Amino acid sequence: MDKINTVAIVGGTHGNEYSGIYLLRHWDKQPEIVSRSSFSTQTVFANAKAHDENKRYLDADLNRQFGMDDLNNYELRGYEQCLAKSLNQQLGPKGNAKTDFIIDLHNTTSNMGPSLILLQADEFNRKMGAYVKDKMSDAVVVFEDHATVEEHYFVSSISKQGVIVEIGPQPQSVIRQDILDWMAEMTKHILDYIELHNTQALPDLSSSYEAFKYTETLSLPLDEKGERAGMVHKAVQDADFSPLKDGDPIFTLFNGEEVYWQGDYIAYPHFINEAAYYDNNLAMSLAEKIIVETV
Amino acid sequence: MDKINTVAIVGGTHGNEYSGIYLLRHWDKQPEIVSRSSFSTQTVFANAKAHDENKRYLDADLNRQFGMDDLNNYELRGYEQCLAKSLNQQLGPKGNAKTDFIIDLHNTTSNMGPSLILLQADEFNRKMGAYVKDKMSDAVVVFEDHATVEEHYFVSSISKQGVIVEIGPQPQSVIRQDILDWMAEMTKHILDYIELHNTQALPDLSSSYEAFKYTETLSLPLDEKGERAGMVHKAVQDADFSPLKDGDPIFTLFNGEEVYWQGDYIAYPHFINEAAYYDNNLAMSLAEKIIVETV
Repeated sequence: MDKINTVAIVGGTHGNEYSGIYLLRHWDKQPEIVSRSSFSTQTVFANAKAHDENKRYLDADLNRQFGMDDLNNYELRGYEQCLAKSLNQQLGPKGNAKTDFIIDLHNTTSNMGPSLILLQADEFNRKMGAYVKDKMSDAVVVFEDHATVEEHYFVSSISKQGVIVEIGPQPQSVIRQDILDWMAEMTKHILDYIELHNTQALPDLSSSYEAFKYTETLSLPLDEKGERAGMVHKAVQDADFSPLKDGDPIFTLFNGEEVYWQGDYIAYPHFINEAAYYDNNLAMSLAEKIIVETV
Repeated sequence: MDKINTVAIVGGTHGNEYSGIYLLRHWDKQPEIVSRSSFSTQTVFANAKAHDENKRYLDADLNRQFGMDDLNNYELRGYEQCLAKSLNQQLGPKGNAKTDFIIDLHNTTSNMGPSLILLQADEFNRKMGAYVKDKMSDAVVVFEDHATVEEHYFVSSISKQGVIVEIGPQPQSVIRQDILDWMAEMTKHILDYIELHNTQALPDLSSSYEAFKYTETLSLPLDEKGERAGMVHKAVQDADFSPLKDGDPIFTLFNGEEVYWQGDYIAYPHFINEAAYYDNNLAMSLAEKIIVETV
């Protein structure tokens, strides 16, 4: 892959995910922390207006607005839909972007630890996953490569290469030191990896590693009025990236009944009971475990 | 103390604390769960409008609006200031309330477990704490009796007797089964205690027990612009009700420096890094450990 010349670190894509916002403030005071010799780094506070209101977003989830059709649809006039066009102009345009690499910083209320979400499984990304896992034993690598980068609607899909750094558990509107430290560390390793890639100085990496590949999203059980009839089962709560097998309990209804998962594969739930799902009744994402080869 | 004839269970005082809201819905379908023979029980969804907007409050914290002066001040016209007057009419009026006992259901993002907050240390409350702790080994009892019930500004101060049930950790906008179960169980024990008090059928209680007494509130370190300069130290995060001694680390500044607590007593932090403090920069409450005698 070509040399990466321009990197953007984006925080505050969701206004109530505080770690990235506070790290940007810190890095803007000490830019040497995120500077490297072989590329330029800029920081972008994506949705300051949502942060001012202490909300994820005002009108619509910003991290769902970067599909190519939506970026070209001028009928979409919600705040985040306009903001997406502005960010696309600043960092993109998607498909021919002036930014070579985007690091988008997120928190989750789920117990996902320090997760690196990759949108494609090309050699550059497979090696990045190995490098980050070699440096950071807690790190988890998740491939969301069920769609192409062009088809993805995330901020980080503006550039040809990009990642989502997703760290939890952290309640919305809170800064936890452990979570902040994890986010700072993972970002450092990603920047180091790009520098080593650019200068053709990559060390020997693990030849293969365990990772996860997104498969599907589960919704909470609803009643006939469309209201929640149950919640995530306590056996699944906080068990992100632990195996879920056919017949395992997955939901508890408010009337006390249990619901069991029916699946024909061993699933690895994540984003379990994420607070941002309050308005769409999602329960969790599922993944398969995969072995990634780095060569 | 006199017989208690009328009990109100209040949920949704804060619109993004979900456990109480979902329990009220459940109990309204099965009212026998919260009914007892010797008193009437009503449920009150205090701030449905804030819940519709998935916020703690619209204009001001509802659970700070029940000071006697504020209830009588018609210049205060924010939404929650008007709502407080309406609730005071419905359940009160404070000082001469038609409701004898209020149970106000709350969640915290702090690791407080199932906490029972009592506003006075009279014999009735001291025994209630013993009863709840005898029935529920995880329960924590906190006395916030630094002010009189009249002086308090909480919803539960409308009636002569009342409690705050405060259960965590739970992120805002999330329903965790473990937290919901704790809240349902603690509420059951409180209702049972009132029934046993009314029917003069209280069992033998522990003659004394450990509890906590609120002492003071600590704020986060701020910079010269009034912005946060640091966060709760990772050694204190999640350590609610663990001892904090003079010289223990309490904050980490974003520049990496540590701040140590200077105190002349052994403090027990709680409400540590509560998300609702995002706009007032509070860090935690402190308490002293006390031994409560039930006779």
